[in-house]
Amino acid sequence: MLAFPKDLKNIINTFIDFSEIYGNAHDKIIIDSKNDYVLQKMINNIIKKTWEKSEFFKEKEPYLRNIILSFVFSSILGSYKQWINDGRKIPLQNFIETIESLVYNGIKNF
Amino acid sequence: MLAFPKDLKNIINTFIDFSEIYGNAHDKIIIDSKNDYVLQKMINNIIKKTWEKSEFFKEKEPYLRNIILSFVFSSILGSYKQWINDGRKIPLQNFIETIESLVYNGIKNF
Repeated sequence: MLAFPKDLKNIINTFIDFSEIYGNAHDKIIIDSKNDYVLQKMINNIIKKTWEKSEFFKEKEPYLRNIILSFVFSSILGSYKQWINDGRKIPLQNFIETIESLVYNGIKNF
Repeated sequence: MLAFPKDLKNIINTFIDFSEIYGNAHDKIIIDSKNDYVLQKMINNIIKKTWEKSEFFKEKEPYLRNIILSFVFSSILGSYKQWINDGRKIPLQNFIETIESLVYNGIKNF
Protein backbone atom coordinates (compact mmCIF):
# COMPACT_ATOMS: atom_id res chain seq x y z
CA MET A 1 0.00 0.00 0.00
CA LEU A 2 1.27 3.44 -0.94
CA ALA A 3 1.61 5.88 1.96
CA PHE A 4 0.84 9.56 1.83
CA PRO A 5 2.59 11.90 1.26
CA LYS A 6 5.91 10.05 0.88
CA ASP A 7 4.69 7.95 -2.06
CA LEU A 8 3.54 10.95 -4.06
CA LYS A 9 6.29 10.28 -6.59
CA ASN A 10 4.98 6.73 -7.16
CA ILE A 11 1.48 8.05 -7.74
CA ILE A 12 2.75 10.59 -10.28
CA ASN A 13 4.90 7.93 -11.97
CA THR A 14 1.96 5.54 -12.18
CA PHE A 15 -0.13 8.23 -13.82
CA ILE A 16 2.68 9.06 -16.28
CA ASP A 17 3.42 5.38 -17.05
CA PHE A 18 -0.23 4.85 -17.83
CA SER A 19 -0.14 7.85 -20.17
CA GLU A 20 3.02 6.69 -21.90
CA ILE A 21 1.61 3.20 -22.51
CA TYR A 22 -1.66 4.47 -23.93
CA GLY A 23 0.08 7.21 -25.88
CA ASN A 24 -1.83 9.70 -27.99
CA ALA A 25 -5.24 8.20 -27.30
CA HIS A 26 -4.74 8.77 -23.59
CA ASP A 27 -3.42 12.28 -24.17
CA LYS A 28 -6.54 13.13 -26.15
CA ILE A 29 -8.71 11.92 -23.27
CA ILE A 30 -6.62 13.92 -20.81
CA ILE A 31 -6.66 17.16 -22.78
CA ASP A 32 -10.35 17.19 -23.71
CA SER A 33 -12.09 19.12 -20.92
CA LYS A 34 -15.28 17.11 -21.58
CA ASN A 35 -13.51 14.27 -19.75
CA ASP A 36 -12.43 16.29 -16.73
CA TYR A 37 -15.25 15.11 -14.52
CA VAL A 38 -14.55 11.42 -15.24
CA LEU A 39 -10.80 11.92 -14.81
CA GLN A 40 -11.31 13.77 -11.58
CA LYS A 41 -13.47 10.96 -10.22
CA MET A 42 -10.90 8.39 -11.37
CA ILE A 43 -7.90 10.09 -9.82
CA ASN A 44 -9.88 10.89 -6.69
CA ASN A 45 -10.79 7.21 -6.32
CA ILE A 46 -7.19 6.09 -6.80
CA ILE A 47 -5.94 8.57 -4.22
CA LYS A 48 -8.70 7.77 -1.75
CA LYS A 49 -8.12 4.02 -2.04
CA THR A 50 -4.37 4.27 -1.55
CA TRP A 51 -4.22 7.09 0.93
CA GLU A 52 -7.37 7.34 2.98
CA LYS A 53 -6.03 4.93 5.59
CA SER A 54 -2.73 6.76 5.97
CA GLU A 55 -1.95 8.56 9.22
CA PHE A 56 -1.66 11.82 7.30
CA PHE A 57 -5.33 11.72 6.35
CA LYS A 58 -6.71 10.05 9.48
CA GLU A 59 -5.78 13.14 11.44
CA LYS A 60 -7.55 15.50 9.05
CA GLU A 61 -11.08 16.81 9.25
CA PRO A 62 -12.99 15.27 6.23
CA TYR A 63 -13.63 18.51 4.34
CA LEU A 64 -10.06 19.66 4.78
CA ARG A 65 -8.95 16.26 3.47
CA ASN A 66 -11.13 16.82 0.39
CA ILE A 67 -9.47 20.19 -0.24
CA ILE A 68 -5.99 18.66 0.06
CA LEU A 69 -6.94 15.75 -2.24
CA SER A 70 -8.41 18.08 -4.85
CA PHE A 71 -5.28 20.23 -4.61
CA VAL A 72 -3.14 17.15 -5.33
CA PHE A 73 -5.06 15.71 -8.26
CA SER A 74 -6.05 18.97 -9.95
CA SER A 75 -2.49 20.27 -9.88
CA ILE A 76 -1.04 17.01 -11.27
CA LEU A 77 -3.70 16.87 -14.00
CA GLY A 78 -3.46 20.60 -14.82
CA SER A 79 0.33 20.58 -15.09
CA TYR A 80 0.31 17.43 -17.16
CA LYS A 81 -2.16 19.02 -19.59
CA GLN A 82 0.07 22.06 -19.85
CA TRP A 83 3.12 19.88 -20.48
CA ILE A 84 1.30 17.97 -23.28
CA ASN A 85 -0.10 21.19 -24.78
CA ASP A 86 3.40 22.71 -24.79
CA GLY A 87 4.62 19.72 -26.83
CA ARG A 88 6.54 18.02 -23.97
CA LYS A 89 9.32 20.59 -24.21
CA ILE A 90 10.69 19.76 -20.75
CA PRO A 91 12.18 16.22 -20.48
CA LEU A 92 9.76 13.76 -18.82
CA GLN A 93 11.99 13.21 -15.79
CA ASN A 94 12.30 16.97 -15.17
CA PHE A 95 8.56 17.36 -15.48
CA ILE A 96 7.95 14.59 -12.90
CA GLU A 97 10.47 16.11 -10.49
CA THR A 98 8.99 19.58 -10.91
CA ILE A 99 5.39 18.59 -10.23
CA GLU A 100 6.41 16.25 -7.40
CA SER A 101 8.31 19.07 -5.73
CA LEU A 102 5.46 21.59 -6.18
CA VAL A 103 2.84 19.24 -4.75
CA TYR A 104 5.01 17.67 -2.04
CA ASN A 105 6.19 21.02 -0.66
CA GLY A 106 2.61 22.23 -0.72
CA ILE A 107 1.28 19.43 1.48
CA LYS A 108 4.22 18.34 3.62
CA ASN A 109 3.47 20.70 6.52
CA PHE A 110 -0.24 19.96 6.73
CA MET B 1 1.10 45.60 -9.86
CA LEU B 2 0.90 42.37 -7.92
CA ALA B 3 4.20 40.59 -7.36
CA PHE B 4 4.71 36.85 -7.46
CA PRO B 5 4.68 34.83 -5.28
CA LYS B 6 4.10 37.16 -2.32
CA ASP B 7 0.77 38.46 -3.68
CA LEU B 8 -0.68 35.01 -4.12
CA LYS B 9 -3.17 35.74 -1.34
CA ASN B 10 -4.46 38.80 -3.21
CA ILE B 11 -4.95 36.76 -6.37
CA ILE B 12 -6.91 34.13 -4.46
CA ASN B 13 -8.95 36.81 -2.69
CA THR B 14 -9.74 38.54 -5.99
CA PHE B 15 -10.94 35.26 -7.44
CA ILE B 16 -13.08 34.55 -4.34
CA ASP B 17 -14.49 38.12 -4.20
CA PHE B 18 -15.51 37.82 -7.82
CA SER B 19 -17.24 34.52 -7.02
CA GLU B 20 -19.02 35.94 -3.99
CA ILE B 21 -20.32 38.96 -5.95
CA TYR B 22 -21.63 36.86 -8.83
CA GLY B 23 -22.95 34.19 -6.46
CA ASN B 24 -24.67 31.06 -7.72
CA ALA B 25 -24.40 32.00 -11.39
CA HIS B 26 -20.64 32.18 -11.09
CA ASP B 27 -20.49 28.93 -9.12
CA LYS B 28 -22.43 27.19 -11.89
CA ILE B 29 -19.92 28.45 -14.45
CA ILE B 30 -17.03 27.34 -12.25
CA ILE B 31 -18.36 23.84 -11.56
CA ASP B 32 -19.45 22.97 -15.12
CA SER B 33 -16.44 21.28 -16.70
CA LYS B 34 -17.59 22.50 -20.13
CA ASN B 35 -16.25 25.89 -19.03
CA ASP B 36 -12.85 24.66 -17.84
CA TYR B 37 -11.03 25.69 -20.97
CA VAL B 38 -12.39 29.25 -20.87
CA LEU B 39 -11.72 29.53 -17.14
CA GLN B 40 -8.21 28.21 -17.57
CA LYS B 41 -7.51 30.78 -20.29
CA MET B 42 -9.01 33.53 -18.12
CA ILE B 43 -7.02 32.70 -15.00
CA ASN B 44 -3.90 32.12 -17.05
CA ASN B 45 -4.26 35.57 -18.60
CA ILE B 46 -4.78 37.23 -15.22
CA ILE B 47 -1.73 35.51 -13.77
CA LYS B 48 0.42 36.21 -16.82
CA LYS B 49 -0.53 39.90 -16.88
CA THR B 50 0.17 40.41 -13.20
CA TRP B 51 3.15 38.14 -12.77
CA GLU B 52 5.06 37.70 -15.98
CA LYS B 53 7.23 40.73 -15.28
CA SER B 54 8.11 39.62 -11.76
CA GLU B 55 11.67 38.58 -10.94
CA PHE B 56 10.39 35.16 -9.93
CA PHE B 57 9.27 34.42 -13.47
CA LYS B 58 11.95 36.32 -15.36
CA GLU B 59 14.51 33.83 -14.07
CA LYS B 60 12.50 30.82 -15.21
CA GLU B 61 12.79 28.96 -18.46
CA PRO B 62 9.45 29.57 -20.37
CA TYR B 63 8.16 25.99 -20.30
CA LEU B 64 8.98 25.60 -16.62
CA ARG B 65 7.10 28.88 -16.03
CA ASN B 66 4.08 27.39 -17.82
CA ILE B 67 4.17 24.33 -15.56
CA ILE B 68 4.34 26.50 -12.43
CA LEU B 69 1.50 28.74 -13.69
CA SER B 70 -0.70 25.76 -14.51
CA PHE B 71 0.08 24.30 -11.09
CA VAL B 72 -1.09 27.55 -9.48
CA PHE B 73 -4.32 28.06 -11.40
CA SER B 74 -5.43 24.45 -11.64
CA SER B 75 -4.96 23.87 -7.93
CA ILE B 76 -6.87 27.05 -6.98
CA LEU B 77 -9.69 26.21 -9.39
CA GLY B 78 -9.79 22.51 -8.44
CA SER B 79 -9.89 23.19 -4.70
CA TYR B 80 -12.52 25.88 -5.12
CA LYS B 81 -14.72 23.46 -7.07
CA GLN B 82 -14.30 20.88 -4.32
CA TRP B 83 -15.19 23.45 -1.66
CA ILE B 84 -18.37 24.47 -3.56
CA ASN B 85 -19.32 20.83 -4.25
CA ASP B 86 -18.88 20.00 -0.55
CA GLY B 87 -21.38 22.76 0.29
CA ARG B 88 -18.80 25.26 1.63
CA LYS B 89 -18.42 23.26 4.84
CA ILE B 90 -15.13 24.92 5.75
CA PRO B 91 -15.44 28.65 6.57
CA LEU B 92 -14.38 30.88 3.64
CA GLN B 93 -11.41 32.35 5.51
CA ASN B 94 -10.10 28.88 6.42
CA PHE B 95 -10.49 27.76 2.84
CA ILE B 96 -8.50 30.78 1.56
CA GLU B 97 -5.74 30.20 4.12
CA THR B 98 -5.58 26.49 3.30
CA ILE B 99 -5.26 26.90 -0.46
CA GLU B 100 -2.87 29.83 -0.09
CA SER B 101 -0.62 27.76 2.14
CA LEU B 102 -0.72 24.71 -0.18
CA VAL B 103 0.12 26.75 -3.29
CA TYR B 104 2.60 29.12 -1.65
CA ASN B 105 4.63 26.34 -0.01
CA GLY B 106 4.62 24.50 -3.31
CA ILE B 107 6.19 27.36 -5.26
CA LYS B 108 8.24 29.31 -2.74
CA ASN B 109 11.48 27.40 -3.28
CA PHE B 110 11.37 27.47 -7.07
